[in-house]
Amino acid sequence: MTLTLEMAQAHLDALAKPQGSLGRLERIAARLAVTQQTLSPQTHPRCITLFAGDHGVVESGVSAWPSAITTAMMATIAGGRASSNALARAANCNLRLIDVGSVTPLVANYPSFVSEQRVACGTQNLVLGPAMNEAQFDTAWAIGEQAAQTAINDGCCVLIAGEMGIGNTTPAACLTMLLAGTDAATATGKGAGADDAMRAHKQTIVEAAVVRVRPLMASYPKAAIAALCGFEIAAMAGFYAAAAKAGVTILLDGYVTTAAALIAEKRAPGTANQMIAAHLSAEPGHIAALTELGLEAMLEWEMRLGEGTGALTALPLLDAAAALMTEVATLSEIME
Amino acid sequence: MTLTLEMAQAHLDALAKPQGSLGRLERIAARLAVTQQTLSPQTHPRCITLFAGDHGVVESGVSAWPSAITTAMMATIAGGRASSNALARAANCNLRLIDVGSVTPLVANYPSFVSEQRVACGTQNLVLGPAMNEAQFDTAWAIGEQAAQTAINDGCCVLIAGEMGIGNTTPAACLTMLLAGTDAATATGKGAGADDAMRAHKQTIVEAAVVRVRPLMASYPKAAIAALCGFEIAAMAGFYAAAAKAGVTILLDGYVTTAAALIAEKRAPGTANQMIAAHLSAEPGHIAALTELGLEAMLEWEMRLGEGTGALTALPLLDAAAALMTEVATLSEIME
Repeated sequence: MTLTLEMAQAHLDALAKPQGSLGRLERIAARLAVTQQTLSPQTHPRCITLFAGDHGVVESGVSAWPSAITTAMMATIAGGRASSNALARAANCNLRLIDVGSVTPLVANYPSFVSEQRVACGTQNLVLGPAMNEAQFDTAWAIGEQAAQTAINDGCCVLIAGEMGIGNTTPAACLTMLLAGTDAATATGKGAGADDAMRAHKQTIVEAAVVRVRPLMASYPKAAIAALCGFEIAAMAGFYAAAAKAGVTILLDGYVTTAAALIAEKRAPGTANQMIAAHLSAEPGHIAALTELGLEAMLEWEMRLGEGTGALTALPLLDAAAALMTEVATLSEIME
Repeated sequence: MTLTLEMAQAHLDALAKPQGSLGRLERIAARLAVTQQTLSPQTHPRCITLFAGDHGVVESGVSAWPSAITTAMMATIAGGRASSNALARAANCNLRLIDVGSVTPLVANYPSFVSEQRVACGTQNLVLGPAMNEAQFDTAWAIGEQAAQTAINDGCCVLIAGEMGIGNTTPAACLTMLLAGTDAATATGKGAGADDAMRAHKQTIVEAAVVRVRPLMASYPKAAIAALCGFEIAAMAGFYAAAAKAGVTILLDGYVTTAAALIAEKRAPGTANQMIAAHLSAEPGHIAALTELGLEAMLEWEMRLGEGTGALTALPLLDAAAALMTEVATLSEIME
């Protein structure tokens, strides 16, 4: 028998507290229960896999940062001193980093939680032609699937994907426009540090790329998506699809990961049913993408860092939801 | 030298991430640092003290529940099966329960984290006369001070107060009206389960009590506050004042605890500077009370249970803030 939201809410309504008195925590608890198909959902152990990649479109001036920063941040993550490391430790969450397509990989001797599986040396510039071909998309997708399987084999019941890739809010904007039906102005934000002029330029890039690619969508959807994608985004889409297929809970991060979720839902319908959205980011297109997926964000904190930081911040809120679902007495028990 | 919000933000701005990219988490981290006067704030160990008490005004029909439920919930908490127990375990937070004035105390053989220190057998009906006298107010306040000191002696650096007391949103509404300058309609909500008719009746009770007491405020503020108070509310006010004096971080819960915070700030100015507000509750007067204290809530989740549940849910967000502040590399470190 399928456990529905209504059945989970009925359990919550029977607990020794006024009905509905824990507000949104109850809705999250019910959704968590449904993703795991049990009234006793678990949130430990959990892990985050960070996927890093570079983007040819950076040469077109869409980011305040050069691609070298992708490598510098991979090194910081490998050294355990990035925001994602700190937040993962605080949330008792295991962390892995996979380089799926940086321009400049880390030199050897990185720790075992880091691996290099580059599909290529960055994507091609998506405004000049396809960012990647379908074979590359499939390779990146499979890397993500394998990463999810590794986490599941470790017993993880909550999976998070995060990303690091200078310029990746541009492919995310293109994919949101293509797959969530927004216009370029809505889809295009300032990313991690663009100013107004750069944002306007970025919007013309997004518009041009999507206009070029959109005619492909009806007959060649994978080619269309690949043309606007990033390696880390394709990998996260595969990660989500595999996690959903395995029936674990997916905690969704911000704008770039949500673009990957749109791909996953398109190619593996139902994937979004396994998701809980951690936060609504500062990127203006994020709300449209979440709405397309039927998701409501837990936090609205103007976060825009990436690296899975929004999901890692919100992760303990799932612990609270699980505890509520599993550990609280029912009213009938205390009246005995 | 005093650590200011600006100094804490300057540290955050120097970290290896785009400035401001963690949004509200950064503001919380800065405030956390200021409450502890260090750029390396700590959030472990932490504890919650729940204060329980009953209210004479319940006889006037302001609550959907009888006072016996206060005792039933104390028993559930003592048995470790209430919402607060579950959320405290999820957040790795120690929990204590002090009965400061129930009508019907627990019978003996309760566990060591529960204690009975009743000031009286419930308050008097605040609409007919003073809920308590000044001596009783002082006794309850001192119990709260002592509870905070116990937590501080245990090494706790984050302190939470929570409450359990059927009918206590009525004194909370009176105190919010008296101390935050709201009108009775704004101050009066549905509490944990009143319907529209009961809420309207509750508003007339609140209005009548505050109109009677308000003239005392200028010359006899303690008597005025005591006249509208609850034993658990007075105890929480003393708890907050002692915690603030000791320089620990106070995580504030919902509407009733915020009424206690208004008292603490009135009697021990500066107490609110040590506070971080966990959530904005479903009670309509809460925002006015938080604004009076200069506080911004972390979560807006329509919670209205009490028992410190909002603070316990939000507590791990402080762990994320502390980790951000203390464990992330600066940009200059990674560029070396």
